[in-house]
Amino acid sequence: MINHGGYRRLADYQKRERSMQKILAGMRVVEGSAFVAAPSGGMTLAQLGADVIRFDPIGGGIDYRRWPVTSSNQSLYWHSLNKGKRSIAVDFKREEGRELLTQLITVPGDDAGLFLTNFPAKGWLADESLRQHRQDLIYLNLTGDRHGGSALDYTVNCQVGFPQLNQFDDSGGERPLNNPLPAWDVIAGQQIALGILAAERHRRLTGEGQFIKLALADVALATVGNLGYIAEATINNQPREPMGNHIYGTFGRDFCCRDGHRVMIVGVSPNQWRSIVRAMGIEGAVTSLAADKGLDFSREGDRFKARTALAALIEPWFAQRDFADANKLLDEHNVCWGKYQSVNELVDIDPECSEDNPLFSTVEQPGIGKYLMPGSPLYFGAVSRETVVAAPELGQHTDEILLDTLGLSSGEIGRLHDAGIIAGITNN
Amino acid sequence: MINHGGYRRLADYQKRERSMQKILAGMRVVEGSAFVAAPSGGMTLAQLGADVIRFDPIGGGIDYRRWPVTSSNQSLYWHSLNKGKRSIAVDFKREEGRELLTQLITVPGDDAGLFLTNFPAKGWLADESLRQHRQDLIYLNLTGDRHGGSALDYTVNCQVGFPQLNQFDDSGGERPLNNPLPAWDVIAGQQIALGILAAERHRRLTGEGQFIKLALADVALATVGNLGYIAEATINNQPREPMGNHIYGTFGRDFCCRDGHRVMIVGVSPNQWRSIVRAMGIEGAVTSLAADKGLDFSREGDRFKARTALAALIEPWFAQRDFADANKLLDEHNVCWGKYQSVNELVDIDPECSEDNPLFSTVEQPGIGKYLMPGSPLYFGAVSRETVVAAPELGQHTDEILLDTLGLSSGEIGRLHDAGIIAGITNN
Repeated sequence: MINHGGYRRLADYQKRERSMQKILAGMRVVEGSAFVAAPSGGMTLAQLGADVIRFDPIGGGIDYRRWPVTSSNQSLYWHSLNKGKRSIAVDFKREEGRELLTQLITVPGDDAGLFLTNFPAKGWLADESLRQHRQDLIYLNLTGDRHGGSALDYTVNCQVGFPQLNQFDDSGGERPLNNPLPAWDVIAGQQIALGILAAERHRRLTGEGQFIKLALADVALATVGNLGYIAEATINNQPREPMGNHIYGTFGRDFCCRDGHRVMIVGVSPNQWRSIVRAMGIEGAVTSLAADKGLDFSREGDRFKARTALAALIEPWFAQRDFADANKLLDEHNVCWGKYQSVNELVDIDPECSEDNPLFSTVEQPGIGKYLMPGSPLYFGAVSRETVVAAPELGQHTDEILLDTLGLSSGEIGRLHDAGIIAGITNN
Repeated sequence: MINHGGYRRLADYQKRERSMQKILAGMRVVEGSAFVAAPSGGMTLAQLGADVIRFDPIGGGIDYRRWPVTSSNQSLYWHSLNKGKRSIAVDFKREEGRELLTQLITVPGDDAGLFLTNFPAKGWLADESLRQHRQDLIYLNLTGDRHGGSALDYTVNCQVGFPQLNQFDDSGGERPLNNPLPAWDVIAGQQIALGILAAERHRRLTGEGQFIKLALADVALATVGNLGYIAEATINNQPREPMGNHIYGTFGRDFCCRDGHRVMIVGVSPNQWRSIVRAMGIEGAVTSLAADKGLDFSREGDRFKARTALAALIEPWFAQRDFADANKLLDEHNVCWGKYQSVNELVDIDPECSEDNPLFSTVEQPGIGKYLMPGSPLYFGAVSRETVVAAPELGQHTDEILLDTLGLSSGEIGRLHDAGIIAGITNN
């Protein structure tokens, strides 16, 4: 099939110098943020090559010292969520600081006029206030809930029902267990990056900017819908009971090896299920069980119905083996499985969490030390992989941003420093 | 500040007919997928206005009947993850079926040549195979791990350490608890949508297509790094202990009301913390506690250190009140809080999960019934909100796609039906 459009562009492309080495070249985003969701959205764009400028108050914002911290009170949380950004420190309690940031947010050019924040869109940050300086501004605002109210991952999560599902079926008590992973924050962060890109595309095609809203609570509510829970509650009207570490609707559970190591195995696809049965050598027992119960274990749902009995057939296999043997046999039979590890074990011994994995680089974080930092999990064939860049020091790029982006003179910059409106790197 | 570029484009825009009513107008994506991650990526794009064509084998793929199912074996899972797409049913075990899909994936035009799949990129789905038909194809492939191996959310999650953190500190046993939310699948889905958009932007600017890779395991590993856990394990070398429903590094925990309802309260910001103290009327006790322990509760970290004692000061307040009273007082004092609900409670009584929330519409899913379906949580100011569209019936759009997109004649389409290469809606 001849693709004239494609060949024509390719020829043009070959004539042109290969200047685009970043997948998001030519994008400058200003970020006013705190905590997880908004910063991770900005960082996602930064790690794909966008120039992301995060502004903070002088001395740092409300999240600058969040735990975990080092012995010298440097936040590992903050530095992990702000890799690859540039940092400008501005006192935006003062009018002159707000004017400076307004200029930065609304600087002209196709590659600029992109702003994301989870600060309230009021006062100087109201859409109308900023948009008068740049009509085609793209402005994404994250709120806790759709009413503009305060909400965090953990207050949203319990309302959408997941902790209620998170119990062992023999727990006796009825205390739901929260998830330490702030999943809604992380998902919202990805949605923020997506929203910015979608709006940038729209502006390229139409010239139009816009105000984009996203509420953390809606991210959770949409997900609960998308995963089928709302439909199930409505159509089947059947509450899903807690089932510990069994995976709903299929066969999958954790098992403990003789030496205490724990392993998750899953038989979701027919091949995966067959691999488990073969590896465990339980073909006969499984066939009898199916006959006894009138079930067909080629169906996931039937495996789920018989999960307790199936798990009982499998437990001895693990109980009789140390992890190293189990590992070997599971791999030989192509079982789909994973090992339970603590974060420390992951970091200390797992090659997937090392420089063997091109996702990671060992990078020095000034004032903290060297550790493995991940880049984006996306690998784009057309461009070189982005170097993983540490988080900025607070105020590290204040002067260069004012010089290059706003065209201020060194005199003006000096005056702003003297007036305490801006700051560079200070003794943190 | 005069923005000449912006005004010029705006004037042009005003002259042009307002034809772009979807934020992702002019994007056609072909999706070959199963399970959660890839379909949710495609659905994310569909719900922003892209034309997403999902292909499946005749009769449905490996995920078509996944639980939860209705009494007539319709999958609420599948239909929730494939809203708004078009469906073509093709027997791609046969050469002619593969040729048809190859044509569909590589059809020319700026708006096409976008393909996402979590099928192995081998054989007819190898990048080289498809790219010979369209040089600037954008092809995103999701794998389980970076080696191309099989991995699922649940086998990845235990390896990155979260279940180990998910225990009550008084649990006695050491059984880690999985999270029923397949967070890595959902996050990967968002990254898939992001990757496609980023590559489409790159192609608009340079003419270049590309092969993009994403591994589910890398999504989890990157997140564990981005949330500071890897840095903490390396720099502080201090394993994080399980802490039940306490939020690490701050004050936040669940509390039980007199009538058994459970509530999560968080005091992350200074305002939020003060609201809790005022609402509970525990100013004096908190001050004494701080003095006794030599701590400063204006610091999040110090609130965390004293979390057990602080929780003990708060528990009686909840124990003495039914939920309705607690609700009222918490709101009066602007406490940041959330109620623990089951999914059924969410669906039955929570106005946030109703048509009061513009996120949701009640939509009929053919063969299943009516229920609340969410659209995208992103609200784009420049376009009308997308109507929430049900999932397709399998094969619903086979003929129209072949007619409109591939330009086949009805004779050719008829022959393909007769030969069993394609199918429309069958009795499912």
